[in-house]
Amino acid sequence: MTISIPIPKGFQLAGVHCRLKSNATQPDLALVMSEVPAVAAGVYTKNLVCAAPVELDRQRTPSDRIRAVVINAGNANACTGRQGEDDARKMASLAAAVCGAAEDEALVMSTGIIGHFLPMEKIEQGITAAAVKLGSRPTDLESAARAIMTTDLVPKIAGRTLEIGGKTIQITGIAKGSGMIGPNMATMLGVVLTDALLTPRMAQSLLVEAADASFNCISVEGHMSTNDTVLLLANGEAGGDVPADDDWSRFRDAFGEVCVELARAIADDGEGATHLITIDVTGCVDRDSARKIAKTVAESALVKTAIAGADPNWGRIVSAAGYAGVAFDPAAVSLKVNGFVLFEVGAPAEFDAEEVSNSIRANRDTHVELAFAEGTAAARFWTCDLTVDYVHINADYHT
Amino acid sequence: MTISIPIPKGFQLAGVHCRLKSNATQPDLALVMSEVPAVAAGVYTKNLVCAAPVELDRQRTPSDRIRAVVINAGNANACTGRQGEDDARKMASLAAAVCGAAEDEALVMSTGIIGHFLPMEKIEQGITAAAVKLGSRPTDLESAARAIMTTDLVPKIAGRTLEIGGKTIQITGIAKGSGMIGPNMATMLGVVLTDALLTPRMAQSLLVEAADASFNCISVEGHMSTNDTVLLLANGEAGGDVPADDDWSRFRDAFGEVCVELARAIADDGEGATHLITIDVTGCVDRDSARKIAKTVAESALVKTAIAGADPNWGRIVSAAGYAGVAFDPAAVSLKVNGFVLFEVGAPAEFDAEEVSNSIRANRDTHVELAFAEGTAAARFWTCDLTVDYVHINADYHT
Repeated sequence: MTISIPIPKGFQLAGVHCRLKSNATQPDLALVMSEVPAVAAGVYTKNLVCAAPVELDRQRTPSDRIRAVVINAGNANACTGRQGEDDARKMASLAAAVCGAAEDEALVMSTGIIGHFLPMEKIEQGITAAAVKLGSRPTDLESAARAIMTTDLVPKIAGRTLEIGGKTIQITGIAKGSGMIGPNMATMLGVVLTDALLTPRMAQSLLVEAADASFNCISVEGHMSTNDTVLLLANGEAGGDVPADDDWSRFRDAFGEVCVELARAIADDGEGATHLITIDVTGCVDRDSARKIAKTVAESALVKTAIAGADPNWGRIVSAAGYAGVAFDPAAVSLKVNGFVLFEVGAPAEFDAEEVSNSIRANRDTHVELAFAEGTAAARFWTCDLTVDYVHINADYHT
Repeated sequence: MTISIPIPKGFQLAGVHCRLKSNATQPDLALVMSEVPAVAAGVYTKNLVCAAPVELDRQRTPSDRIRAVVINAGNANACTGRQGEDDARKMASLAAAVCGAAEDEALVMSTGIIGHFLPMEKIEQGITAAAVKLGSRPTDLESAARAIMTTDLVPKIAGRTLEIGGKTIQITGIAKGSGMIGPNMATMLGVVLTDALLTPRMAQSLLVEAADASFNCISVEGHMSTNDTVLLLANGEAGGDVPADDDWSRFRDAFGEVCVELARAIADDGEGATHLITIDVTGCVDRDSARKIAKTVAESALVKTAIAGADPNWGRIVSAAGYAGVAFDPAAVSLKVNGFVLFEVGAPAEFDAEEVSNSIRANRDTHVELAFAEGTAAARFWTCDLTVDYVHINADYHT
């Protein structure tokens, strides 16, 4: 399905199994190498309690000389104190070594159980094995995407190809979800590679802007992980100059599309999800207000259970907007679900509940549109529904 | 169980069935009468989308001449526009009339389905029937408490008796939960009665202070209702003066205890709950910081599912604290669950996971203690666990 997406020029990937995950057949360590020093940018969790790899990468980005990224699943290296910091540094330097780079030219990401030290012997064996496999198979991209999965059901890969100044530019990313944190649980990780030429400052601002409209606009249950990290590597191997003007605009759009596709895929694969819910909020004073309302609706357990039950429950949606902490005129609010008008200028609309319910039941995607009359700003947020399976995954994982 | 709690002097209550709830045998309308004009105070939902009864009561409190409170379940009279306002006013004036009071001497609360007009004929019949029953039976208090239930499994009643200046003062309250909002769903309502003599200003500040440490410190799923209302009525029928100095302090404590007992009972009876979780946060710079952390932990679906699964998952609790938006030193955090130390000054502690798990499984109450080293302020929050039944109640209520 996804292996037809090209890997940007000058990058090699591999995913290997080194016994970090309990499932003995799944890959659990990914290595990404750039054949030349790449510009790198990062966005990270805002959680005060953050993992050692996050602290290391924060120090090393933005950069203009990253050669490797190593990612493991099965152990988050979080709440592991001084030894955790040493392990993260060691893991990065092992990855740098197999790629022939200086020890501080690598970045690292971890996801999995927290409060346990990394099994460094396995990590080291994994990095060695991955180095051997780098660039050897057409399924490298998918292996790497699979290696970073935790409770994810499917690997998440997205790509865009565009022509800039006669050169073919590729942007390709991988990501994983799908719950937020905890022993045996998850985190959001992503790495987007491109062979375009960018400056560190361009890369950082591009990533911040794109993440703000993608990775920072999704929620499974609103629990912010200690390990969330999205990296961008740009190695310039496509040839050509730094994109400017219209080329920059086209590149930025394509990069944004890759991030949105990955972020949507994370929400869609949220633990136990049977629906991907897209929430569009329009007519606000500013984007921040629109985003706050969209996020509050997305995180309401009552909204999420209603969609799971295929119920066009406008009361839950409108009342969630009401406690978002954003001022608006309730008498001017309108709401559509899957295109059906449920609430119009402050009052319940006439609609056929059975028809709307059937539409929710028949489609994995549910579209919620909330319109206000305060201004012209808008925001979009993605979440998934809340099902019995979510509770099973997160309550019964020990039994 | 609860019917031995006395009704404060000069108050009468009744609960009757007037066919507002789908369940044909349950009472669904409660009437509270004070034989003399009572001081009344109110605290209300902060939701911008608020129901007509909330708007009416807001205008009428604080007051020194309230004679009646009428409460119905089954219909929230929310999102009902101008007619909803007229219906709320009419409902209050009907209650005032049967109590022999002026039409603006009554307050009103509603809970239940939203977006539908109140069936005023049934409401009127209910008020008439309730007036006939007022003060007629020893089970009046329980009937009233049952009449305001929606998805609640048990009626919620709490009381304290104390002596002040040779007079016996009674404080008695009823309340209901147990999910937050939506068709067929719920809201938090409470009314606390006392025969003490208070001024309107004392009553209002007392209620605000007590609600801040009780009704505003509970969460089932964090969805703020359009109808949340807690009222205090004080009619002075115990005799004696307005309590002062040490008497005031004792009265205030007793009043606070009644509010906490009702609030806890709401969290304990949260939809699908198998555990009542008490979260104590200590060592913060100020109470607001402590409260923010406690609330964030209380609202984490991952914390709530972990308790449902009897898992001592310190990572979910500590990481939830980390995204509360409050600055703290992660290296100084400690955590106990049911008295077991799970995390100590920033690092996982050695503990027997099976023993802690057994303790969670064996007790309905789970005690989470999070200690910081930033200051001396503390806060307590109550919530319930998140179970498969919660999802069934909120997703499958139409089927």
